[in-house]
Amino acid sequence: MSKQQIGVVGMAVMGRNLALNIESRGYTVSIFNRTSSKTDDVIAENPGKNLVATYSIEEFVESLEKPRRILLMVKAGVPTDKTIQSLLPHLDKGDILIDGGNTFYKDTIRRNEELASSGINFIGTGVSGGEEGALKGPAIMPGGQKEAYDLVAPILEEIAAKANDGAPCVTYIGENGAGHYVKMVHNGIEYGDMQLIAEAYDILRRVGGLSVEEIAEVFREWNTGELDSYLIEITADILTKVDPDTQAPMVDVIMDKAGNKGTGKWTSQSALDLGVPLPLITESVFARFISTLKDERLEASKELSAIKNPELSESQKFELIESVRKGLYFSKIMSYAQGFAQMRIASEEYDWDLQYGEIAKIFRAGCIIRAQFLQKITDAFERDANLKNLLLDKYFLYVTESYQSSARDVIVTAVKAGVPVPTFSSALAYFDSYRSETLPANLIQAQRDYFGAHTYERVDKPGVYHFEWSTGEEIPQ
Amino acid sequence: MSKQQIGVVGMAVMGRNLALNIESRGYTVSIFNRTSSKTDDVIAENPGKNLVATYSIEEFVESLEKPRRILLMVKAGVPTDKTIQSLLPHLDKGDILIDGGNTFYKDTIRRNEELASSGINFIGTGVSGGEEGALKGPAIMPGGQKEAYDLVAPILEEIAAKANDGAPCVTYIGENGAGHYVKMVHNGIEYGDMQLIAEAYDILRRVGGLSVEEIAEVFREWNTGELDSYLIEITADILTKVDPDTQAPMVDVIMDKAGNKGTGKWTSQSALDLGVPLPLITESVFARFISTLKDERLEASKELSAIKNPELSESQKFELIESVRKGLYFSKIMSYAQGFAQMRIASEEYDWDLQYGEIAKIFRAGCIIRAQFLQKITDAFERDANLKNLLLDKYFLYVTESYQSSARDVIVTAVKAGVPVPTFSSALAYFDSYRSETLPANLIQAQRDYFGAHTYERVDKPGVYHFEWSTGEEIPQ
Repeated sequence: MSKQQIGVVGMAVMGRNLALNIESRGYTVSIFNRTSSKTDDVIAENPGKNLVATYSIEEFVESLEKPRRILLMVKAGVPTDKTIQSLLPHLDKGDILIDGGNTFYKDTIRRNEELASSGINFIGTGVSGGEEGALKGPAIMPGGQKEAYDLVAPILEEIAAKANDGAPCVTYIGENGAGHYVKMVHNGIEYGDMQLIAEAYDILRRVGGLSVEEIAEVFREWNTGELDSYLIEITADILTKVDPDTQAPMVDVIMDKAGNKGTGKWTSQSALDLGVPLPLITESVFARFISTLKDERLEASKELSAIKNPELSESQKFELIESVRKGLYFSKIMSYAQGFAQMRIASEEYDWDLQYGEIAKIFRAGCIIRAQFLQKITDAFERDANLKNLLLDKYFLYVTESYQSSARDVIVTAVKAGVPVPTFSSALAYFDSYRSETLPANLIQAQRDYFGAHTYERVDKPGVYHFEWSTGEEIPQ
Repeated sequence: MSKQQIGVVGMAVMGRNLALNIESRGYTVSIFNRTSSKTDDVIAENPGKNLVATYSIEEFVESLEKPRRILLMVKAGVPTDKTIQSLLPHLDKGDILIDGGNTFYKDTIRRNEELASSGINFIGTGVSGGEEGALKGPAIMPGGQKEAYDLVAPILEEIAAKANDGAPCVTYIGENGAGHYVKMVHNGIEYGDMQLIAEAYDILRRVGGLSVEEIAEVFREWNTGELDSYLIEITADILTKVDPDTQAPMVDVIMDKAGNKGTGKWTSQSALDLGVPLPLITESVFARFISTLKDERLEASKELSAIKNPELSESQKFELIESVRKGLYFSKIMSYAQGFAQMRIASEEYDWDLQYGEIAKIFRAGCIIRAQFLQKITDAFERDANLKNLLLDKYFLYVTESYQSSARDVIVTAVKAGVPVPTFSSALAYFDSYRSETLPANLIQAQRDYFGAHTYERVDKPGVYHFEWSTGEEIPQ
C-alpha cells in the first residue's frame, strides 16, 4: 500500500481547507480528526480527491511517507499539547510536526525544545488569510528547524498565496517561535489597521456628514491608490451591503461591540515586556475593550452632551476626505514602524535573525493586512537591512513629512467635533515624540530621583548621579 | 529573656526605615539581615533604640513573641522565596509573614496559598512613600488573611501616614494578592500623573515660551487648587533647582531618558488580560520607552523638521496656562477613572471585594500620588458604592463636562505645534469614546465577520449572526 506525502490532523474549517489546498497541488493527503464523523464528511463532500481518511492515530501515522510531515490544525493551547502527546509514541526521529494554529509563541518555543530532545522536528507556523485563504492561498510564516523547513518548503510554497510578481507568500522566518511571533505581530498590525479605518469612517460620517454609500465610494476610490489593501477593499464592500430585514445599511444594524481573540493583546503585552513603544496597536486593543462597555456608554451618553457639528460645504467635504486619506496613510506608517521595531527587538531578544524585508514581502498577498504599501517596507530594508525604524528611511521620511499636516488637521477636526480618534492621535504623538531631540522625560527622571533616589544621567557628561534636592548638591554614584 | 513584638528581615533602606518607624511608636523590634554587618550598622547608627540585632534565622525567630509578626523587606522575586523558605522550618502555625516588597501580585497569591497549607498567615502589602515615607509614615495596602491583618493592624495604623482628618493611611484591602494589586495600580496611576505633568510642562515651555522659573511658579500656584498634590508640589520644587556645575536649571542637564521598575508595565499587562481599557497609563509607559531611544530621536530630529511656533502675547500665555491646568485636571480624572475601573474588574476576577472609597482614602497621604482630589473619589463611592466608572458620578460628570473644552484646546494647540501629547490625547479619546452611544466598532465587527466569520450581534434583536457577504444573506447562529 502506498504512503501519503503529508497528513493533516484536525478537520475544522482551517484544517479541511488547507488539506484541500495541498491536495489540489497534486499531493496525496492523509486526514484525521478526533471525531471520525468529521473526517467522513470531508471525504463525502470532496469526492474524487487524493484524500485518505484515517480513524486512529496509529493508522494515520502509519499511512505517511518518512520522514513524516504532519500538519496540526487543532485548537491552540491544551488541545495542541494533547494531540502532540498522542502522536509522539508513534513517531520516528526526523519526523516533522507543523503547528498551523494560532499558537502563543512561547508555547511554540517550549514545544520545539521538548520535541527536539526526542529528535522530532517542530515547526510553528503562522497562517493568515481566513477560511478562503486557507483554501486558495494563505500567507505562511514558519519557524523552527531550518533543515525541517527545507523538507516541507516545496509544499508550503505551492499552497501559499502568490504576490503580484509571482513570489510565494512564505519564507523561513527563524528558529523555534519566530513564525508564531511574526504572525502575532501581523495580527496586532491588523487590529491597528482596522481601528484606523473605523476612525476614518467615523470622521467622514459624523464630521463630514457623508452617507454610508458615499463612504463606500470613498473607500473604493482609496483602494486604487496608496491605501490599496484588502482591509480597505472589504470595507468598501461592507458599506454597500444592506440588511435584508430592515433595508438599513448592514453596518448600522451590527452591534458596536468589537470582539477579539487575544492576539492583539499578546502583541501589546510582548511590547511591554520588551520595552518597545507600541502605542497605536495597544490603543486599538483598548478601543475594542471600550466598545464592549455598551451599557456604560449608553448611560454616559445621556449625561455628557454630544457636540453639534456644523454641516460642511461640498468643497469642505472634499478637503476633509483628502485629509483623512493622507492622515490614514500617515498613521498606518506609524503603526507599521512600531510593529517592525518590535520584531527587531524580539529578534535580538530571541536570537531569530528576522529578515524584515522578506517578512514584508510575504505579507503582500494572502494575509489580512496584505497591501501594496508593504513593497515600500521591503524596499526600505533593501536600502538598509539594519534600519532601526521605518521613519528613518527616505521614502517614509518623505511621506510622513509631507502628510503630517493632514494628520494634524484631521485630529484637530475630530478633537473639536468630539469624535474619538485614539489611534490617529496616538500615531501623531509617536511621530512627534520620535522626532523630538528633547522630550520632557528629563522632568520624569528628576521626579523619580526626587521621591525615590532613582538617579539620572546628565546630557553633558557621562556617569550616573543623584541630586540632594533639599541641599542642592549633586552626588556622583 | 523578654521577646520582641515584631521582627524585620532585610536592612536595606526601606526595611531599616520601617523598623525605625515601628520602634518610634513604642514597639520592640528584632532585626535581621543576611549580611550581618548591615545589622550592626543599623544598631550603631541608632543608639538607644529598642532594636535587637540577631545573627541567624533561628535566633531571629526565637526572639519574637507568638504569634510571630515578621515583616519581610527583601528584594521581590527569588530572594523573597528564599527568605520564606529559610524561615519556614522555624515558624509555628498562626505566625504572620508580611511581605512589604514591590511584589508582583500573582507571586503573592501563590505564596499566600502555599503558606496557608502550612498554617502560616501571609500578608502581601504595598508600601508607598519612598524612603522618607517608610521612616515617617507611608501609605500601606495590606492583603491576606483578615484575621492575621487584625493582629498587625494596630502597628500598621501607628506607622502609617495620617490624612488631614487624622485617619491612618492603611486599610485591609482584601484576600491574598489584593494589597499588592492595588499597590501596582497605584504605581500605574503614578506613571500617568507624571507623564501628564511632563506634557503640561512641555506645552508651557515649547508653546507658551515660559521659562523654567515661570513654570515653577505656575506649578506652585496650581498646587494651591484642584491639582494640589505631592507630584505637583515636587515638580514646582524641582524646577527651581539649579545645577551647581553649569548654573543651568537642573531639569535641563538631566538626560531625557526615563527609567522604570516594571510596575507600570504590569498594570498595563493586567488591564490587557482583564479586558479593561487602560490607555492613559499605557501611553505613559510607552512614552518612557520612546524617551530611551535617544539616539534614534536625535537622528530623526535632523531629518524631520520641527514646527516653528509663534510667540504668544501675555494674555495668550495666561489663557494657555489656564487651559493646560483644566486640561491636566480633566486628563487626570480620565486616568483615575480607568485605574479604578481596572480595580473593580480585578476585584470581580479575584473575588477581593475591594472597597474603592477606602482605597482612595488611604491614598490621601503618605503615598506618591497623594492629592486632595482623592477625597472626591471617596465621596463618589460614598454616593454609590457600586459606581462603575468615576465619569458616571455627578462631581466628575460636572468637572469633565465643564473642562472638556479646555482639554480640546490644549490638544489642538499641541497638535498644531508639534508637541507630543500622548496622554492628553489619550484621555480625550477615552472620554469621547466613553460618552459615545455608538462607536465605529460595528464596522470592525463587520470586517471580522467578513474575513473570519467571527459573527456579530444586532442592535435591534437578540442573537448571534453571520452574514454571507457574497450573497447578502444573514444566518442566525
